[in-house]
Amino acid sequence: MRGLISDVPLSLTHIFGRAERLFPSKRIITAAGGVRRETTYGAWAARTRRLAGVLDALGVSEHGRVGTFAWNSDRHLELYYAAPCSGRVLHTLNIRLFPEQVTYAVNHAADEVIFVDRSLLPIFLPLVSTFETVRHFVVMDDGADHPVPEGPGWLDYEELLAAAEPAELCAQDEQRAAAMCYTSGTTGNPKGVVYSHRAMVLHALGSLGADSLAISERDTVLPVVPMFHANAWGLAHSPVMAGATLVFPGSNLSATAIADLLEHERVTLAAGVPTIWQAVAAELDGRDLSALTRIFSGGAPVPKALSEEYRERIGIPMLQAWGMTEISPIGSVSRVKSTLGDPHDPQLADVRATAGLPVPLIELRIVDQEDGTELPWDGVARGELQATGQWVAAGYYDDARSHESFTADGWLRTGDVATIDAEGYVRLVDRTKDVIKSGGEWISSVELENEIMAHPQVREACVVGVPDERWGERPLACVVPLAPGDLTAEEVRAFLTSRVAKWWLPERIEFIDEVPKTSVGKFDKKALRARFSASAG
Amino acid sequence: MRGLISDVPLSLTHIFGRAERLFPSKRIITAAGGVRRETTYGAWAARTRRLAGVLDALGVSEHGRVGTFAWNSDRHLELYYAAPCSGRVLHTLNIRLFPEQVTYAVNHAADEVIFVDRSLLPIFLPLVSTFETVRHFVVMDDGADHPVPEGPGWLDYEELLAAAEPAELCAQDEQRAAAMCYTSGTTGNPKGVVYSHRAMVLHALGSLGADSLAISERDTVLPVVPMFHANAWGLAHSPVMAGATLVFPGSNLSATAIADLLEHERVTLAAGVPTIWQAVAAELDGRDLSALTRIFSGGAPVPKALSEEYRERIGIPMLQAWGMTEISPIGSVSRVKSTLGDPHDPQLADVRATAGLPVPLIELRIVDQEDGTELPWDGVARGELQATGQWVAAGYYDDARSHESFTADGWLRTGDVATIDAEGYVRLVDRTKDVIKSGGEWISSVELENEIMAHPQVREACVVGVPDERWGERPLACVVPLAPGDLTAEEVRAFLTSRVAKWWLPERIEFIDEVPKTSVGKFDKKALRARFSASAG
Repeated sequence: MRGLISDVPLSLTHIFGRAERLFPSKRIITAAGGVRRETTYGAWAARTRRLAGVLDALGVSEHGRVGTFAWNSDRHLELYYAAPCSGRVLHTLNIRLFPEQVTYAVNHAADEVIFVDRSLLPIFLPLVSTFETVRHFVVMDDGADHPVPEGPGWLDYEELLAAAEPAELCAQDEQRAAAMCYTSGTTGNPKGVVYSHRAMVLHALGSLGADSLAISERDTVLPVVPMFHANAWGLAHSPVMAGATLVFPGSNLSATAIADLLEHERVTLAAGVPTIWQAVAAELDGRDLSALTRIFSGGAPVPKALSEEYRERIGIPMLQAWGMTEISPIGSVSRVKSTLGDPHDPQLADVRATAGLPVPLIELRIVDQEDGTELPWDGVARGELQATGQWVAAGYYDDARSHESFTADGWLRTGDVATIDAEGYVRLVDRTKDVIKSGGEWISSVELENEIMAHPQVREACVVGVPDERWGERPLACVVPLAPGDLTAEEVRAFLTSRVAKWWLPERIEFIDEVPKTSVGKFDKKALRARFSASAG
Repeated sequence: MRGLISDVPLSLTHIFGRAERLFPSKRIITAAGGVRRETTYGAWAARTRRLAGVLDALGVSEHGRVGTFAWNSDRHLELYYAAPCSGRVLHTLNIRLFPEQVTYAVNHAADEVIFVDRSLLPIFLPLVSTFETVRHFVVMDDGADHPVPEGPGWLDYEELLAAAEPAELCAQDEQRAAAMCYTSGTTGNPKGVVYSHRAMVLHALGSLGADSLAISERDTVLPVVPMFHANAWGLAHSPVMAGATLVFPGSNLSATAIADLLEHERVTLAAGVPTIWQAVAAELDGRDLSALTRIFSGGAPVPKALSEEYRERIGIPMLQAWGMTEISPIGSVSRVKSTLGDPHDPQLADVRATAGLPVPLIELRIVDQEDGTELPWDGVARGELQATGQWVAAGYYDDARSHESFTADGWLRTGDVATIDAEGYVRLVDRTKDVIKSGGEWISSVELENEIMAHPQVREACVVGVPDERWGERPLACVVPLAPGDLTAEEVRAFLTSRVAKWWLPERIEFIDEVPKTSVGKFDKKALRARFSASAG
């Protein structure tokens, strides 16, 4: 027996139409190259309809991929709806990938057109000759003075829009591809995640939830997290669904610029990676941030000290969200349960610092890395974190490597090692490829790094596993001292003695000038392993 | 091109599993016949699994309808999940329907088993012989001392549960029927709405939204609105999804009992019809209701004076929700937009008194009753309110009357006449069948009633249209005076002169002792029309 309910697809056109119809006077603000641009959902919607007309006029095909190489802006938001609501697929290119990775993504997705911010032309132009399928480049003038190429294929965004007829935007099949984003793995080519309309709409609806981001029409939302990666944590969708005021930072992500926006636009909800909040912390003094009710941090664990600094200085603790490009991206949010106490209680900083509880419509589990059995939620057992649910990827676009990342029963292998406690709080321990197996026991490279970095003379520390004849693997610590020559390996080991188990103590400690980083700023452990494994012994 | 996202159904098993896994220690409280019963989601989940085992043991078929005739309680909540999560269909019987309507619903749905509260046996037992398909009656002892029938087919809930094995609950196809509810129309037999798993899960997720009910794990929710009708506004699903504390009032819905629960259980969110809140208003004095953050009212328009009384006395205005059994039921929620001002502003009482804005995933429109064209959102044009969306019915169960209630393009005809203003706020004007067409213009029977009832000497007033040779139809006002004989038709008309258009003034005013009511307590205009149309002239 089937339910008798309207057969209406979950289509991004619903979010678009809702903002256009219910919130035409609500504002969208963009800090564009030092100039403040303000528009409304009503004007944005009219431009978005015309932008869909531009895609028609350019001959972009029925499911054609529409690339963007752009900062967060009202124009990027137009593309976020004009492409999928006219049946095309938005392809946000991560401007921070290595050049050859961008080339791969453009060619692999077969982008037909790319919309690029003028300020990004210096890093974009050298790639243009490597693109095989792109027929048009549309420049969005964001006030930068870089010269724009002329000639066939090069077009101006505002000129096209002024000349275009609005297109009719129809509800799309909910399984239809709405957007693509390539992940920035440290090895091999990037892998393409393909989001459906259904996943995007459900992810947005979930983000309105009181225990998720709780986005309301009354909010003023500042997505510092980029729209060119993982849907800006859904912040190009959920505030539009809610009719919230949106503030886009454009190309200037300096701490001062962000703090200025927080203060002058009376932002209530801001979202970004911890390094942003670390930098902004230095800008808090003397500012009126009384409108701010929550700061969401994700992309990397929030240092507890940073979260506590915000709680003490502006009265709100940082709220942590965990996710992945493959999870659209929100998988869990670190809300303090009422049974544990007040959400602002200093004693609960450890809870707030976890990856949190899985959000509705997402399920998580931890699995033994060797035999694949599911592990108990006891806060002790460590295993690979796996995910399934309404907005979790089921594979990568046209990629033979898909099977490596998904289990036989269809769950995403996140590559994270985690514990889950009896309350359901997820604590990330390490990446599966970085955890060190020594004498049959696991050592967390991340935990060991954190303990070493607690030493006052240490600037950075990175721990990798190196082959060992007796134990299989042993940890090797690469340490960047504050002042070169001031710290010895013995001092580091002595400091660690009271902080970690004896068998975690690294025999090898190498002092280096800097930890090598990947394209997205994470520790490049592959490079360190290659450098030191060779000289083992 | 299709999205590459996990193919996971939207199944109520997800809500069930989430509460069981993440919130096992959270509480469910039931006021059962004067005795306070407290359990946890963990214990509830274990009992629900055993209850599914009971359904297996009773031989309830694969899609078998499981009737309930019961108050709001933890046991009713067990049924809300045991039936659909094991593939059956929950059929909540409205205990306030006329007896012959209950019989019709049971036989039309072909219920195989009915779970009945012991306190309801006096109204249930006389019907039993009229049921054609029911093989088992399971009595839930709620402390009432009515004798329980013995003999074949009569079973005890707790005995069955104690003897049962837990069943495995598997994710269900999202289009599968999860529940049924028959509407209580004033004419003809009730009509069955069939809810899918998908609709129930999406309705619950939507209810967590910050601008909808905003249900959080930190809430303590008191659904006064009955679980036997329209899913208790989703409050049997959304608080479970959120892990909120639930408080069920059982059979005692007296104002004192409700006020006691509000105070003693530290309820944060309560939901019910305006008549409940009208009665509870007399119980507010001297109570500590400091935990209460919102009162949702629906089912009928909230009198502005009542909403303002709550705002003035306990600091929170009443929030109005509008919906229908056919909309699962929430269609709109009356949140004050930030652009209009502070949500507590006394000046905005008129906005708070509207039916509100359509919630995400629901779309509304108004349509000319004669030519079917869509009308503008200008706050003036009046037309039939129509709805579509993720949890709007597409038809009635096995019912030839379905086509009358749905348009050719699949929208639900709500039977309400409404205006929608430029902001999107819906104002209900009348029912389509009650609006009066006089000389080519529409007269709202509801507005005319409200104006008459504003007269200090009037207890109740009900306006119906009666045939008129010259004008087609004219309004006839049935008035119940506070003191019989103290009020004349001339006085009523004189009072109305400054309040309504001249052509609205009713020529005929009949003084009656009482307005006849339907089974669910609404004015029975059909009966009045029959009574006075005959004597027209």
